[in-house]
Amino acid sequence: MHTDVEQERFDSISPLDYRYRNKKARKLLSENGFTLYKLLVELALIKAFARRGLCPAEQVEAVERACKQVTTAEVYREEKRIKHDIRALVNCLRAKLERKEDVHKGATSYDIVDTANAARYRDAIEQILIPSLIALERVLIDISLREADTIQIGRTHGQHAVPITFGFAMSGFVSRLGESIVKLKGLASELNGKFSGAVGAYNATSLIVDDPKAFEAEILEHLGLQPAEHSTQIVPPDRLTRLFAEVTITGGILGNLAHNMRHLQRTEIGEVYEESTEDQVGSSTMPHKRNPINLENAASTLKILIGRMVTVFLNQVSEHERDLTSSASSRPDGEHIAYLIEMADRMTATMGRLRINRANIERNLHMQGDLAEPLYILLAAYGHPDAHEKVRKLTRQAEQEQCSLSLLASEDQELKPYLLQMKPEQLEVVQNPSLYIGLAPVIARKVAEHWKRELCSEY
Amino acid sequence: MHTDVEQERFDSISPLDYRYRNKKARKLLSENGFTLYKLLVELALIKAFARRGLCPAEQVEAVERACKQVTTAEVYREEKRIKHDIRALVNCLRAKLERKEDVHKGATSYDIVDTANAARYRDAIEQILIPSLIALERVLIDISLREADTIQIGRTHGQHAVPITFGFAMSGFVSRLGESIVKLKGLASELNGKFSGAVGAYNATSLIVDDPKAFEAEILEHLGLQPAEHSTQIVPPDRLTRLFAEVTITGGILGNLAHNMRHLQRTEIGEVYEESTEDQVGSSTMPHKRNPINLENAASTLKILIGRMVTVFLNQVSEHERDLTSSASSRPDGEHIAYLIEMADRMTATMGRLRINRANIERNLHMQGDLAEPLYILLAAYGHPDAHEKVRKLTRQAEQEQCSLSLLASEDQELKPYLLQMKPEQLEVVQNPSLYIGLAPVIARKVAEHWKRELCSEY
Amino acid sequence: MHTDVEQERFDSISPLDYRYRNKKARKLLSENGFTLYKLLVELALIKAFARRGLCPAEQVEAVERACKQVTTAEVYREEKRIKHDIRALVNCLRAKLERKEDVHKGATSYDIVDTANAARYRDAIEQILIPSLIALERVLIDISLREADTIQIGRTHGQHAVPITFGFAMSGFVSRLGESIVKLKGLASELNGKFSGAVGAYNATSLIVDDPKAFEAEILEHLGLQPAEHSTQIVPPDRLTRLFAEVTITGGILGNLAHNMRHLQRTEIGEVYEESTEDQVGSSTMPHKRNPINLENAASTLKILIGRMVTVFLNQVSEHERDLTSSASSRPDGEHIAYLIEMADRMTATMGRLRINRANIERNLHMQGDLAEPLYILLAAYGHPDAHEKVRKLTRQAEQEQCSLSLLASEDQELKPYLLQMKPEQLEVVQNPSLYIGLAPVIARKVAEHWKRELCSEY
Amino acid sequence: MHTDVEQERFDSISPLDYRYRNKKARKLLSENGFTLYKLLVELALIKAFARRGLCPAEQVEAVERACKQVTTAEVYREEKRIKHDIRALVNCLRAKLERKEDVHKGATSYDIVDTANAARYRDAIEQILIPSLIALERVLIDISLREADTIQIGRTHGQHAVPITFGFAMSGFVSRLGESIVKLKGLASELNGKFSGAVGAYNATSLIVDDPKAFEAEILEHLGLQPAEHSTQIVPPDRLTRLFAEVTITGGILGNLAHNMRHLQRTEIGEVYEESTEDQVGSSTMPHKRNPINLENAASTLKILIGRMVTVFLNQVSEHERDLTSSASSRPDGEHIAYLIEMADRMTATMGRLRINRANIERNLHMQGDLAEPLYILLAAYGHPDAHEKVRKLTRQAEQEQCSLSLLASEDQELKPYLLQMKPEQLEVVQNPSLYIGLAPVIARKVAEHWKRELCSEY
Repeated sequence: MHTDVEQERFDSISPLDYRYRNKKARKLLSENGFTLYKLLVELALIKAFARRGLCPAEQVEAVERACKQVTTAEVYREEKRIKHDIRALVNCLRAKLERKEDVHKGATSYDIVDTANAARYRDAIEQILIPSLIALERVLIDISLREADTIQIGRTHGQHAVPITFGFAMSGFVSRLGESIVKLKGLASELNGKFSGAVGAYNATSLIVDDPKAFEAEILEHLGLQPAEHSTQIVPPDRLTRLFAEVTITGGILGNLAHNMRHLQRTEIGEVYEESTEDQVGSSTMPHKRNPINLENAASTLKILIGRMVTVFLNQVSEHERDLTSSASSRPDGEHIAYLIEMADRMTATMGRLRINRANIERNLHMQGDLAEPLYILLAAYGHPDAHEKVRKLTRQAEQEQCSLSLLASEDQELKPYLLQMKPEQLEVVQNPSLYIGLAPVIARKVAEHWKRELCSEY
Repeated sequence: MHTDVEQERFDSISPLDYRYRNKKARKLLSENGFTLYKLLVELALIKAFARRGLCPAEQVEAVERACKQVTTAEVYREEKRIKHDIRALVNCLRAKLERKEDVHKGATSYDIVDTANAARYRDAIEQILIPSLIALERVLIDISLREADTIQIGRTHGQHAVPITFGFAMSGFVSRLGESIVKLKGLASELNGKFSGAVGAYNATSLIVDDPKAFEAEILEHLGLQPAEHSTQIVPPDRLTRLFAEVTITGGILGNLAHNMRHLQRTEIGEVYEESTEDQVGSSTMPHKRNPINLENAASTLKILIGRMVTVFLNQVSEHERDLTSSASSRPDGEHIAYLIEMADRMTATMGRLRINRANIERNLHMQGDLAEPLYILLAAYGHPDAHEKVRKLTRQAEQEQCSLSLLASEDQELKPYLLQMKPEQLEVVQNPSLYIGLAPVIARKVAEHWKRELCSEY
Repeated sequence: MHTDVEQERFDSISPLDYRYRNKKARKLLSENGFTLYKLLVELALIKAFARRGLCPAEQVEAVERACKQVTTAEVYREEKRIKHDIRALVNCLRAKLERKEDVHKGATSYDIVDTANAARYRDAIEQILIPSLIALERVLIDISLREADTIQIGRTHGQHAVPITFGFAMSGFVSRLGESIVKLKGLASELNGKFSGAVGAYNATSLIVDDPKAFEAEILEHLGLQPAEHSTQIVPPDRLTRLFAEVTITGGILGNLAHNMRHLQRTEIGEVYEESTEDQVGSSTMPHKRNPINLENAASTLKILIGRMVTVFLNQVSEHERDLTSSASSRPDGEHIAYLIEMADRMTATMGRLRINRANIERNLHMQGDLAEPLYILLAAYGHPDAHEKVRKLTRQAEQEQCSLSLLASEDQELKPYLLQMKPEQLEVVQNPSLYIGLAPVIARKVAEHWKRELCSEY
Repeated sequence: MHTDVEQERFDSISPLDYRYRNKKARKLLSENGFTLYKLLVELALIKAFARRGLCPAEQVEAVERACKQVTTAEVYREEKRIKHDIRALVNCLRAKLERKEDVHKGATSYDIVDTANAARYRDAIEQILIPSLIALERVLIDISLREADTIQIGRTHGQHAVPITFGFAMSGFVSRLGESIVKLKGLASELNGKFSGAVGAYNATSLIVDDPKAFEAEILEHLGLQPAEHSTQIVPPDRLTRLFAEVTITGGILGNLAHNMRHLQRTEIGEVYEESTEDQVGSSTMPHKRNPINLENAASTLKILIGRMVTVFLNQVSEHERDLTSSASSRPDGEHIAYLIEMADRMTATMGRLRINRANIERNLHMQGDLAEPLYILLAAYGHPDAHEKVRKLTRQAEQEQCSLSLLASEDQELKPYLLQMKPEQLEVVQNPSLYIGLAPVIARKVAEHWKRELCSEY
């Protein structure tokens, strides 16, 4: 029999709360996680008071103990009574202390809220998201190296173009994801806290301490944060906006990868597949199907991120020293990160079981017959004044007459002088796509090795 | 001591699951609600089989009983094993039945999913959202009637313009919200279900019954739904998109009202205020403050809705007979409705305790002195060829010389012939804004009465 | 040599002004078009004055003549001087008249602006967009009927599912587009004008006429518009928002069609192609390529529409009797319509030259061998208690042993009793996908005929 | 009489092409600007060929001359014939040369397009946008310093909170804008070009040169660009996405400033105003009005940017080696930058004529009477165990009894022991808001001086 807790869980409306539950993300991004970080800020304040002798040294330990006892549930009950969330937290904390007057002294609500959010979003990025992304990066690096020489037809407009290698294609995502991880790190580490009071001018703390800016810096230091150069009642929202923009961009990169891998699994293409477990049901009515549902899910999640990013941008405007019209709409910020974590983990698992169908990738490579591009390039290189147009016409002719382009070219009087100058290995490229892969394997390896060095050592 | 259930609740990431919890909304829009509706569709299928003699009549009751025993928790456990959500539901249902073969027969997953969603979103709109909106509409109608004659300065660009009445301003929202409610009703009632199988062509049901379209209609009839004219594996997403667009538009109307009421509470304006309870804390550090937090919250929620609407639009494209790239991203659809319900209820409560500060509204009305507009209109009406420009210059002059516009006008030789023609009551309008309110009270009452008749009788 | 005008054109920043130029759209949606409609409103006002004897009857003709002489360029020059756009228009018009005092009398700027926009957006929808969409609808109807029996494999998740017909797939878009056209018509015809003055209370017109509401209705009647039930300085933005939401939704339908047709042109799939002209260059470097660039362009345009729809939603909030924070951001509204017109015309041209590659569509249909779904459905119909699971396992076995599903089934002892009950034509379905198309051709024809009757007669 | 060019201009649909025309922006961001940069890339290719002896040295000058003669108009005419934009450009260029075969040799269209866009967007940011933003930054720095000591009431939730100074508030925007300028610079300088051919693997250039990567670097060097670490047919879109996200964020900062300045001009608040020219018309019907239309316009433009940013994010996904579904939708990218330039210039002009109404700012400062916050802070600092709650109640009492908070406090027995410990200058703070400004002037100056050093020296 399922328990009440399970019942409660499925009474949730957000898929993050009933379906895409990530334990680690939940620790920081849930309301319980938020309570925890707000208490950490209140505690940091007491530590700063104590170090300056503004409260007894023992008070630190007393508050630390009290913090551990405060539960979100009791805070909500108190808030229901007094209609103010931070004052409710403060009341609950005070209720557990003998000496009460130090708690929250000189603080305004958003000294606590914005500082707590900066710290927990930074931690969620650094401790959960980035490791998840690096796990994915590793898988992509492995594939890039493993398949650096696996020749595959390149595709533009959904049409066969000229060849690449599978590892080369993958290394593009290694490069893009690697760069995004570096950006995420930088932006997360730039998040600011504040302890500048109700309008940002240190009005209250100026009454209590001599050096309110140093006092602020000391409090934030306990959470590993720097103060904003200027704050109002709130930390300027711009850095958080930048961070979420990058979260969205990372989602775009993963979504692009998912899109590509999904299409390579189309029945007619079949170049890759996912190893699946025995029991998996493909379709409730078509038992034979193997659907790339994880890739579709990841591509779908990108649609969530882009929509929500609009809300993040809208939250950037706050009236005068602040209004609250960005408050309800920034509460779901944590969901943004949680969705990307979910997306990353899903992609890691899926890419980890991605296998190449060698027969199909080879079959597809040769579908279009002779390659027009190298012929055109070579003709131009050997001085043909209008090589592109000439080859375009030959290609159409070859299509209509159902014969090979190289045959037509070899019989063409106009082309003879140019073809005669070419070396045999140059001419062979036209007929054999495997010879026309440029630097694909080289780049695949170079990019993979670069990001291996850059990111993966540390984890 | 708080229970595990409370702990679980605050382990939620979505504010809808830990903070803005609406019991009624949860019944339909949670995962438990979704399970319920999916089972209702499975049951409707059995009923249709039974009526046609394709399964024993007793099977209906057996399935009905079995449905009541299925819990979301066990479905999730089964899904974990077999990796398919609907097949998991079917397995759980079958496990509770002696005769198993009828369950889900001829159905594809999305016959169940899309039909269940159409029914529950329709019910959420009709049974929860619209009553919430009508409750708000009633409050607005009351204010419109009560304050139909309360003269207030009209404002454009944040500047005083010419007078209206408070009831007139409110009746604008009565009209807009009323229209949106009517649209929501229509769009909710248009939502379609489907029972057309894996690709929409009734392939499977054509093997089982002679009249697959009538069979589909019969199943959907049990849920009060009509079939789509054409479906693929899924119901065309357009009608749901329209409904969510209207949900967003309703949010825009409420957000506009919240914006206006919030600004009328600015310290310097102070034309309205909210009666508050004794214990409410305005600020954690500024004990004197009374902040319009509910209006700010509502305005903030609009930012959530607009962002999420992007995702809804993105969900409109589904590849061929469908792909799953709109699946994860349509799971939060219910949140969209839940946020608007929250917003509506909050606005109803807030507008219900909104009071007018008569002294302030009167003070503000007279701030700008003589009205230029009626003078210009009257001069033009009596034939002045360039009245607007003339009055513009007089206004500047009055400002510079710190004297009244009507005094300057009365002393102006050029204006004399026109002023002489005017009736005294016409001239008075220039000096007394209370006389220059046009049809404001008339319209306030007319609009309020119209929507009272239209909407409020039925509830 | 190109002229200065061409130079000017390519000095444009918007692709609509240098690249996607549609002559008809430009007539209404350009700034010249806007000037035209604003003058129509000013003229309607004079007509209403004249009918009531408030100005001489000859003034109508005089104003009509003057309107024809006003150019946008001179209005802009005047605006530069006086910094007010509508007053500039009024000045230009007045300058061309002997009797000047009637012009704009009693009007506020947005009486003119919002009324002009309602009329021209309605006209752009009714006279340009809808005919464009109906032209596309006709092409789709033709394809639906022509290819009603062309069997094609249905695809879900990019995987082969069970068969449909090409006409059936197309008729889905006939149905969706047809419905959207009907909605667009309705929403365009609902757009309102206003003539209620600076704050919507008819303050000014109440000084001039006895029946300001009838006076407003009469003016708007000249433009074929109805007044809003309640207006402020502006018409409530909701109906325009609804219209643009539907424009976006139509874009979603066209984008979906473009997406599907593009993917059917993938090299490996090749079920459709576009007949192209002799001179077209597929690629600047790969002369052989035929890229579905028009379909890609249409799919791309959807991304434009969805982004801009955010701005439309944001324009819904206007402060008190209005602020101007939606003014700059509603100027590009016409672009929204223009992009959809471009998209529709492009799709009409492309779908008009879409051809089916019969060989490929047939080849793809048979790629996956025996169909599992009908076997499972038939087994279940004949009473097998666990048909889905049984067939799922057989399918895996067939795959591993590289043999046909029907062979395995026919040799399976457990299935024997069920297979014996089946009619030969039932069993044949498993092996021959062409027999498993359900009602696809029937629906294709029914839907096409329905919308032919509904929409296409009138054009 | 206006010319045909003017007529053409007002046949534009985009406000950027008929209304918000910025000459400098147009040079880079128009289609003519795009042609120019594409030709620069073609020229760079020839230079690289010449340096390697792959074409005669004179060819560089010949191509340079030819580039100067190519007009966008003729390219469009050629494109109309051959249906390919870059090949059309190439044909036009070739037609002007005797030796034709070098042009575009080894290039794919997007080597030209993406490289040209990277260079011109970088230039538009560096040469136009950033100087515009720095001009605004200068104005804001001046105001910050000039008004560093101008005491103003701080506002949260639209309610009076505790004091700041006007310069302090302004310096918040100096800080935010300064940081955003730095980010824009960095992101613009990171934009990459490419010359890696049709699928990014240097397939074509590998046939022509020995060191395709060095060859690419050399070509890009001519445009001041670095190659992407990995490209496909296109440069990875992520860096451009980041840049546009920052453009949007800058818009958010300017929009926030506009929002605040607009509200300070509300009739009832009147703390700031814009010096206006004599001829300006405030309203077409209310001649007395002075509307903050430029601030409203700027706030409105933010709504444009946020919507369009959605499109930018959507453009991040490109299929395999690329599809074209981001092509039409990235054409308006330049508009994004152009709108922000317009917004910045407008804000610079407006903030430059912003004046403070000293009487009003002083009046508003004293509206709320005694300050509760310092009283609560001081009581807590002197050991009152429940100061916040005590002061909250006193505040309510003061309100009800219409007397001053400090009077009530001084008469309160419970507070006596604490008040006795306070210094007179501490107590005075409660009654005199001018004494309770914390570090506001200090920070105003510090922030302004910091950004003066950081940014303004170089311009």
